[in-house]
Amino acid sequence: MTSLLLGIDFGGTKNAIILSEFGTSHWLGHRRQFSLPNSNAESNLNAVLKMSRELLLLHDGQLLAVGVSFGGPVNFKSGMVKLSYHVPGWENYALRERLEHEFGVPISIDNDANVGAIGEWQYGAGSKCSSMLYITVSTGIGSGWIINGKPYRGKDDMAGEIGHLRVRPEGAFCSCGKRGCLEAMACGPAIARRARSRLNEDSIAGQKLRSLCNNHLEEITAEMVSQAANEGDKLAEEVLREGANYLGIGIGQVLTLMNPDRVVLGGGVSKAGNIYWEEVRETAKKHSLSAISTKIIPAKFKDEAPLWGTLVLANNLIMDSSKDTTCS
Amino acid sequence: MTSLLLGIDFGGTKNAIILSEFGTSHWLGHRRQFSLPNSNAESNLNAVLKMSRELLLLHDGQLLAVGVSFGGPVNFKSGMVKLSYHVPGWENYALRERLEHEFGVPISIDNDANVGAIGEWQYGAGSKCSSMLYITVSTGIGSGWIINGKPYRGKDDMAGEIGHLRVRPEGAFCSCGKRGCLEAMACGPAIARRARSRLNEDSIAGQKLRSLCNNHLEEITAEMVSQAANEGDKLAEEVLREGANYLGIGIGQVLTLMNPDRVVLGGGVSKAGNIYWEEVRETAKKHSLSAISTKIIPAKFKDEAPLWGTLVLANNLIMDSSKDTTCS
Repeated sequence: MTSLLLGIDFGGTKNAIILSEFGTSHWLGHRRQFSLPNSNAESNLNAVLKMSRELLLLHDGQLLAVGVSFGGPVNFKSGMVKLSYHVPGWENYALRERLEHEFGVPISIDNDANVGAIGEWQYGAGSKCSSMLYITVSTGIGSGWIINGKPYRGKDDMAGEIGHLRVRPEGAFCSCGKRGCLEAMACGPAIARRARSRLNEDSIAGQKLRSLCNNHLEEITAEMVSQAANEGDKLAEEVLREGANYLGIGIGQVLTLMNPDRVVLGGGVSKAGNIYWEEVRETAKKHSLSAISTKIIPAKFKDEAPLWGTLVLANNLIMDSSKDTTCS
Repeated sequence: MTSLLLGIDFGGTKNAIILSEFGTSHWLGHRRQFSLPNSNAESNLNAVLKMSRELLLLHDGQLLAVGVSFGGPVNFKSGMVKLSYHVPGWENYALRERLEHEFGVPISIDNDANVGAIGEWQYGAGSKCSSMLYITVSTGIGSGWIINGKPYRGKDDMAGEIGHLRVRPEGAFCSCGKRGCLEAMACGPAIARRARSRLNEDSIAGQKLRSLCNNHLEEITAEMVSQAANEGDKLAEEVLREGANYLGIGIGQVLTLMNPDRVVLGGGVSKAGNIYWEEVRETAKKHSLSAISTKIIPAKFKDEAPLWGTLVLANNLIMDSSKDTTCS
């Protein structure tokens, strides 16, 4: 009988599952589902459980373990979700206990940035290097560490909060209550907001960007800004470079403090093209010492890094019966 | 016959050695010697070798290994010194090879910030926690990491360059060629320089500080600034708080990115008293997320952290015949 591993990714707007054969990296099947509007923890969980049961029914085998990526802070040791910033009802939710009850097998749960890091490290751009930081830049900015060949989570499971590095002390207010955090200055919505504000100030500049959004400035996205910038729109280029510059400052601090083998950059905003990457890399270099040779490289996976990581989490539960956090 | 470990600390202005019995933390003997003016790599090395031979002659036993702390960048794997910022002649010096030839036993060499971190971690304020950053603030600012229970050095042996975090982009020029690095803003000489400049601007303020240096402003040290601040001198307090503030910003970035079990703060400037510590801790808190509970605590050792660390390096050579970098 086939030995199976299940991976679950609870995202902010969509959930996904994956089924794999233990000992291989082969995906036997996967499912993805957008959350319904007004969904909550319980409805999301039920939808995921339904998808999982259906997928398991299609594949003969014995489920050995489940790895879970959660889009929000998690206590890795206790398997408790702290909260979700997008979906209500997850506050102090004993998710591991609940899933152990449902599946009757060991469960390992971590936040999506850490699980994404583990996925990219094991199967993607990380190439199992000794140390790396995986950064995702999309609606928020998060990151996860691999250090000395293992996931590193920090004392309070808060390591890798790169989104809250204060890259501009008097900058925009952040959801955390402070000002000038990297996330508030360089995430997708921040880039879109800055473009909007520049277009409002100057009614002539940014024609390409205006036409991309059909003059509905409120509909501008970071993707439109990237596209316009790469098609030669000067205003869009300036706005895009500004976001990249803040990210470069943050990465420069990472290089100075940690000098990892590599920095792997993913998430929607990281698809912004050459102008963006050039600015990120040059700024990071400017903000770190010349002897530091860490490369900043694109992630291999788009949205699937956490799913790949869930398989590593599940696998480790089997390989390491002490349930240690190692990933080697 | 007693099994012996030798530790050597090549500092910028002084060198020290320590002899210990393998398997204990007992110091059989130690020696400390200031470098002569105009000394160079060869004269320092000869002085250290002479001290070492004398100390070894006093103690019957068999030398098993030597651990070395070097005050400057080192390639840990190759045992090559890159350079010293204080003493000429160390450029690309094959120190491990040279010492292997002299002592005929295995040698392990690392830079002083890393070795200090290892010493504080194993014998001092680190209490063998899983992750810590050891920071020394004196004429320069350096730091060394322990992560996942091991020293962490980074791709180019450059991890822990906290002194080159850019805490004020348009700030003072740094020895590295950039501006506003933490070291340039908050090391001992930077604090003294700022005090001098403030006293030159305002001929009335800072009476306590003026009297401590007998009105020879060029002789002001960070220690005098601390003393005057703690005795109620307002100008000195402002200057001291400014240095502490920059350090707090740097540590805040460390907490945000790494959330280590603890931050251990040592070096001469860290003896600056309550005003200094209060400002460092409050600023670090302001610059990191509220869920982060990492404590900033004083180092146990004054100058001896690297010497303690050399014993750990030497011990690991014996315990781990593969010469791995582990320290557990």
